[in-house]
Amino acid sequence: DMYKIAVIPGDGIGKEVMEATLHVLESSNVDFEYSFADAGDEYAEKTGIPLSEETVNLVKQSQACLFGAAGETAADVIVKLRKELDLYVNLRPVKSYPGTKYLFEGLDFVIVRENTEGLYSGLEEYTQDGATATRVITKAASERICKFAFEYAEKTARSKVTAVHKANVLKKTDGVFKDSFYKVAENFSHIETDDRYVDATAMFFITQPQMFDVVVTTNLYGDILSDEGAGLVGGLGLIPSANIGETNGLFEPVHGSAPDIAGKGLANPSAMILSAVLMLEYLDEYDEARRLENALLKVLDEGKVVTKDLGGESSTMEMAEEVRSKLEAL
Amino acid sequence: DMYKIAVIPGDGIGKEVMEATLHVLESSNVDFEYSFADAGDEYAEKTGIPLSEETVNLVKQSQACLFGAAGETAADVIVKLRKELDLYVNLRPVKSYPGTKYLFEGLDFVIVRENTEGLYSGLEEYTQDGATATRVITKAASERICKFAFEYAEKTARSKVTAVHKANVLKKTDGVFKDSFYKVAENFSHIETDDRYVDATAMFFITQPQMFDVVVTTNLYGDILSDEGAGLVGGLGLIPSANIGETNGLFEPVHGSAPDIAGKGLANPSAMILSAVLMLEYLDEYDEARRLENALLKVLDEGKVVTKDLGGESSTMEMAEEVRSKLEAL
Ligand SMILES: CC(C)[C@H](C(=O)O)[C@@H](O)C(=O)O
Ligand SMILES: CC(C)[C@H](C(=O)O)[C@@H](O)C(=O)O
Repeated sequence: DMYKIAVIPGDGIGKEVMEATLHVLESSNVDFEYSFADAGDEYAEKTGIPLSEETVNLVKQSQACLFGAAGETAADVIVKLRKELDLYVNLRPVKSYPGTKYLFEGLDFVIVRENTEGLYSGLEEYTQDGATATRVITKAASERICKFAFEYAEKTARSKVTAVHKANVLKKTDGVFKDSFYKVAENFSHIETDDRYVDATAMFFITQPQMFDVVVTTNLYGDILSDEGAGLVGGLGLIPSANIGETNGLFEPVHGSAPDIAGKGLANPSAMILSAVLMLEYLDEYDEARRLENALLKVLDEGKVVTKDLGGESSTMEMAEEVRSKLEAL
Repeated sequence: DMYKIAVIPGDGIGKEVMEATLHVLESSNVDFEYSFADAGDEYAEKTGIPLSEETVNLVKQSQACLFGAAGETAADVIVKLRKELDLYVNLRPVKSYPGTKYLFEGLDFVIVRENTEGLYSGLEEYTQDGATATRVITKAASERICKFAFEYAEKTARSKVTAVHKANVLKKTDGVFKDSFYKVAENFSHIETDDRYVDATAMFFITQPQMFDVVVTTNLYGDILSDEGAGLVGGLGLIPSANIGETNGLFEPVHGSAPDIAGKGLANPSAMILSAVLMLEYLDEYDEARRLENALLKVLDEGKVVTKDLGGESSTMEMAEEVRSKLEAL
């Protein structure tokens, strides 16, 4: 197979981790046809807009998109892409990898974040004395994301799905979400369910993270909890994400463009490489996904040719080179 | 001085930790005149409503209120009290105490949460396909809470205030909050300032918690982050909170009514005792606040007469008795 992939390196370290990841993918057994596009701060400086319609269309016409990072304009780029392509799932694994600064050994759960509505609906207004934002929770979007979470649990042999909400305060909106969750759950009676308040979840992530397997939640809670999850396993350098819709997938590290370290070869390419792993899974190339993940795991485990944040002295590309040679040896 | 204090034990372990705390306070050098009131699930079962107007008025007429915990009706009780009494500040210290299961030694920062608006405004509607909630952010409330945060930093000799928001996505509402923060900051030029995204903050709480001193944020972010903060220092059993307005203060543990352990004498009274410490500070009884805190610290540090969650075998009242005898010896 030859997959059509849109590649948007974006700003700052986005470019570096993308270059590194594409270098590794050259030794993959799967073939990709890349189309490159620009988006983000630099692109906006040149053209006045951070994301063009052509780029949106390019991504639409590709089977998947690899996205690096955008700077100040991140919201305008990534939130718009999610919406335009109806990438309603944001999947974020929380996994402790060997050789990294995780807080707990053996953590392995997944956050399934609704990616199109909630407080990301773009409905804000200035008022006389401030501003208001409208949080939109629909049954359709809630059921769709919960269905994905249960199906994902099934597919990956996970045994429990936890809905996270704040239905004690947001009785109507989060009530809709919670009800949708339990309605969908009826079709998956072999999977254990429970639900938790978002504040309590933020605590339990630290005090009892082992209780989580698949976590499904609304947009902003998912945004906050997945960064907390990143903290649990050693920071954003390790966390990939998949934005998935009915017809496309977009894969990006959870980290941003990191202007403070950009251009210095310091960036840890792991989150971007793991985003490519998620892309391979999305393309049903499971064997290749495991190979790539294992190649990275070996490099992390050995801890020799790794970037500064992982305790090493290697550059982004040196680490990528090492992952590539492990991949070739597998 | 004789302070008029409203006491609302509420449900579940609320009753137990309140009894324990009042027992300790009997050995305080400060005198209190208590008025007791009921609120919460049990009260609602008897009367049909979780919180009566008389109780609201009782709290209004008191200088401060000690509140235990409410069960399922917590939102209706505590959110209503905050609003009716305009308790616009929710102050939550994150402090690692000796003998407790904190993640990091020496943590000591404070979360100042706006307590009256945001997503707690109660503006929710069902729509044809789901529901909407309106997030309200006003300049007045934002400036008021930021002013409190800076004044609190001054008073407690803290050197930095960090505003937490999500102004990249919620450009208008969180834009108002962020702008208000920097406007207020102009009057406190000797205090260091910065601002962070709420998702990044959730990560930094784990990876670099030492960067925080005073954190000021909107209502729901503060709700989530303060539970995460509780996780950092060993869970909800240790975290007190102060709800403060222009004319009243209400002091409550961050934990809930914990029906699973209620009635068994298992509850850790520390969060409620520390809530009394915050009350003493609010009443400008600083010496007495330090005495009470030190008495508890001694008991935690010795780790002998403490509850199960702290690794001991003592009951709620036994631990309270121990704190009281330390207090008497100070
Ligand atoms: C950059 C920002 C708009 C984005 C979000 O809030 O979703 C990011 O934090 C993320 O989690 O992907
Ligand atoms: C019980 C609930 C309504 C409350 C809140 O959301 O504020 C609680 O979580 C808290 O933090 O005090």
